[in-house]
Amino acid sequence: MGPPVHPRLTFALAIIEGLAILAYAFSGFIEARKHRLDAVGTFLVALATAFGGGTVRDVLLQRRPFYWVEHETYVLVIFVLSLFAPFVLRMASRVFNERALLIADAIGLGLFSISGTSIALDTGMPAFIAVMMGVVTGVFGGIIRDVVCNEMPLLLRDSRPYATCAFVGCWFYLLLDHLQLDPVYSVIAASAFILIARLVTFKLNVRLPH
Amino acid sequence: MGPPVHPRLTFALAIIEGLAILAYAFSGFIEARKHRLDAVGTFLVALATAFGGGTVRDVLLQRRPFYWVEHETYVLVIFVLSLFAPFVLRMASRVFNERALLIADAIGLGLFSISGTSIALDTGMPAFIAVMMGVVTGVFGGIIRDVVCNEMPLLLRDSRPYATCAFVGCWFYLLLDHLQLDPVYSVIAASAFILIARLVTFKLNVRLPH
Amino acid sequence: MGPPVHPRLTFALAIIEGLAILAYAFSGFIEARKHRLDAVGTFLVALATAFGGGTVRDVLLQRRPFYWVEHETYVLVIFVLSLFAPFVLRMASRVFNERALLIADAIGLGLFSISGTSIALDTGMPAFIAVMMGVVTGVFGGIIRDVVCNEMPLLLRDSRPYATCAFVGCWFYLLLDHLQLDPVYSVIAASAFILIARLVTFKLNVRLPH
Repeated sequence: MGPPVHPRLTFALAIIEGLAILAYAFSGFIEARKHRLDAVGTFLVALATAFGGGTVRDVLLQRRPFYWVEHETYVLVIFVLSLFAPFVLRMASRVFNERALLIADAIGLGLFSISGTSIALDTGMPAFIAVMMGVVTGVFGGIIRDVVCNEMPLLLRDSRPYATCAFVGCWFYLLLDHLQLDPVYSVIAASAFILIARLVTFKLNVRLPH
Repeated sequence: MGPPVHPRLTFALAIIEGLAILAYAFSGFIEARKHRLDAVGTFLVALATAFGGGTVRDVLLQRRPFYWVEHETYVLVIFVLSLFAPFVLRMASRVFNERALLIADAIGLGLFSISGTSIALDTGMPAFIAVMMGVVTGVFGGIIRDVVCNEMPLLLRDSRPYATCAFVGCWFYLLLDHLQLDPVYSVIAASAFILIARLVTFKLNVRLPH
Repeated sequence: MGPPVHPRLTFALAIIEGLAILAYAFSGFIEARKHRLDAVGTFLVALATAFGGGTVRDVLLQRRPFYWVEHETYVLVIFVLSLFAPFVLRMASRVFNERALLIADAIGLGLFSISGTSIALDTGMPAFIAVMMGVVTGVFGGIIRDVVCNEMPLLLRDSRPYATCAFVGCWFYLLLDHLQLDPVYSVIAASAFILIARLVTFKLNVRLPH
């Protein structure tokens, strides 16, 4: 795992991680609101969105314990937020505008994809498979959210680069890893790459070919 | 696992368990009928409804063998019933009315949820996660049934307490377990709690907030 | 695993296997085209169709590594084909007509189902469960493809025998296995049985009862 990281950086990473998980849970709240789900439905959809990608990855890699078992607090926080989801969404829409949610989601995409790739490499997966595991970690929560809500997954029909940003960023991470950069800085640089790629392609309205 | 149970009680539990599995399979038959599925489709949907929740739980907890591998007979019975599903449903609608099906399903919800929580505790899960595993065991079969049949899961859109009853009942089970009650009586009491909570809230037309 | 197979036969099997995987991936391309998915969506759907059945089987049986981890090349080939999917489909529709795709898909159904049953037997599953695992291996990719694309799975609504052919063929394989035939010839004979059953029932327009 490389040399010990500066404690302040570890703290910053934990904050960013928490933000990313909440951003994913929020996209679950928004979807649940759209379909007028009740509090329990909202909770289950938000949970699946936030932890679905990592859980599928861990099932594929036979890793245990799951992230949400080790960090029960996140499940509890999402549970409490779900009880007050309509209120939470109203508050959130005052504090955060759509752009803030887009950025939080892009941070999540970056962190989840790169951590997924890193974990797959640690379990001895070959490069291409590790990249695929990274993309799965980043995007599967959203796919499960949409499938459960009986919609064609946004990721598949929206022609904006989303999985593609994750895919390219994961290869960038492999390159940095190959260059033996300090792991923490590789993770940060590659996650930032995905974040920026997502925001820039979104802003420039780049479209993938059909 | 506590002191040995009276054999007559074991026998009674096996009967109730069989009823619960068949009740879940039946809700699969009814859904399959609605979509005019053929015999094979009916079998697959009924199987997923009856064993989906427990299978997802066992995949998450890395438990093997699956219940349906150890109790092959249930798979065979559902297979044979599927071949004659239209006939079976016609017969059943004469013998059992809708209320009987509601009760059988509520028995299944109780037994599956509590057994799921109990199994999760045995594998060392913390309390809140064990409760979530119990709810997953109780409700995931129905979610898979509806997703495969291309419908928004009933559980998510129906605002009647269903997962909520299971959730509260699983906490009640944790309380009884904490009080060191005989395991078998804890299971029965908590399952009965869920059964009664489901029937009473249904009868009183209680609705969850949106 | 029986006596060593003649090398030329092993080579022929590898070719047939490759054809079957590509046939399944192609049905993913066609579905993706229908929903106008972008290149990434096309790739993910094709991947899920080609490897979904075997992956679900391996998760249920706790087998690792997955086929697509050991045979990364197939993932790469499907990735490259996805980038040019519209072009590939146009080319393919000139070279292969619909009948060719039907045959390729039926080859896949035969090989995947029989290999699934064989693997399940090797891990000590009882006969009926091994047959179910074979059917899951053969048909689950198509179910995932349709669920992700927000359609009722073709397998469930189409009343033509598809899973049924796989089911009967897997029992035929168990019979040959019981007769202690050379494993390779059992696999070939039972796969051919499924292939022929599928094509003949399709041609004769046989329908399953509703």
